[in-house]
Amino acid sequence: MSKHLLQDLDFLQKEIMNIASMAEQATSKALLALLNRRVELAKEVIDEDETIDRKEVQIEEECLKVLALHQPVATDLRFIIAVIKVNNDLERIGDLAVNIAERATYLARHDPLQISLDFPEMADAVSTMLHRSLDALAKADIVLAREVLAMDDAVDAANRTTFVRLQELMYKNPESIKRAVHLMSVSRHLERIGDLATNIAEEVVYMVEGEIIRHADSFHHAEDYGDGE
Amino acid sequence: MSKHLLQDLDFLQKEIMNIASMAEQATSKALLALLNRRVELAKEVIDEDETIDRKEVQIEEECLKVLALHQPVATDLRFIIAVIKVNNDLERIGDLAVNIAERATYLARHDPLQISLDFPEMADAVSTMLHRSLDALAKADIVLAREVLAMDDAVDAANRTTFVRLQELMYKNPESIKRAVHLMSVSRHLERIGDLATNIAEEVVYMVEGEIIRHADSFHHAEDYGDGE
Repeated sequence: MSKHLLQDLDFLQKEIMNIASMAEQATSKALLALLNRRVELAKEVIDEDETIDRKEVQIEEECLKVLALHQPVATDLRFIIAVIKVNNDLERIGDLAVNIAERATYLARHDPLQISLDFPEMADAVSTMLHRSLDALAKADIVLAREVLAMDDAVDAANRTTFVRLQELMYKNPESIKRAVHLMSVSRHLERIGDLATNIAEEVVYMVEGEIIRHADSFHHAEDYGDGE
Repeated sequence: MSKHLLQDLDFLQKEIMNIASMAEQATSKALLALLNRRVELAKEVIDEDETIDRKEVQIEEECLKVLALHQPVATDLRFIIAVIKVNNDLERIGDLAVNIAERATYLARHDPLQISLDFPEMADAVSTMLHRSLDALAKADIVLAREVLAMDDAVDAANRTTFVRLQELMYKNPESIKRAVHLMSVSRHLERIGDLATNIAEEVVYMVEGEIIRHADSFHHAEDYGDGE
């Protein structure tokens, strides 16, 4: 491998970690806004999304440049394609964080619902998945990537439980319907962030093993499967 | 351009149109299953998703081969990267069709709700967007692509209206809550298919003009923006 290609791949690696930490921060901040009813934090998430969007565009441009300049093959080519796809997933995570922040804003301006939901646990699980999938990408670590895949079922189950509880609340208290619908959206968005972390982990396995596991288990794949069940 | 590269790009074009027509058919069939309460059609959508998944994997492999073999630059490189991303979007559309089919199955087994929703119009708009975005890709036609972008707001508005109507129904008739939540999911999935068609159209503009318009309007971008408002 040429020294320049090595430098460029290194740079891409750093850049993808940058956008990843932006997406991670947006997610945690949106959840903090939701759980602590902090409208100003939600606003920050919404305002800062533009930076993530710009970063995505930059990284993709950079990938195209590296492809055109060095015309890499084999592992290097797979790595760059993985960066392009992961970059896209991270930008989508930023969008989902914005959505959660929007719900948080609405909910903070209305009376809290008397219901206990597993959002803190779900948020923890999703953050861990995201963090671990990016670590797996940075280290090309399949073991770590597979840990992420194993966590996705628990998040899906938590999403289903949340839907059932919110539906029960709606039956009992029709005044809660609008707020409950917003909370269902939050739950679904969290579950989708988990799915995107799963995508990233699968991309790592694929990159390292050249094996496509994405469609091995169709349950993981239908993105919103199970919400509202 | 070498004759072989030309042939390979042609092949990729045909393959992306194949998976596109699969995704389009899955979407129309899922909507037919929903509107006409046909469980057997829903089952077909669910069963056939595997074929779309396999096709996605094949196309991506093919793209990597073409990149490694011909090391294309400029327009050809952009085209192949666009194919990789559009391929991904189409596979996600297949997943969303599966989700709609699952809702359709549940709804067909329960009494219909007495509510008039704009699903046929929304479905028409989304099908047109999808069809036109793929046509734009095939012909590298920016005018067509921009038409798709212009249609997205109407679909977003229809999704919002559907949410409002379903919430009103839930207030009036708590027995409808579970079915209404399923219908909200259908509406949101349709809206997301519209978003993915928008992604494809933006990819075409980007490919042709080398201009990134994806983040020009952040409203289009927050994927589920507006549901439940």
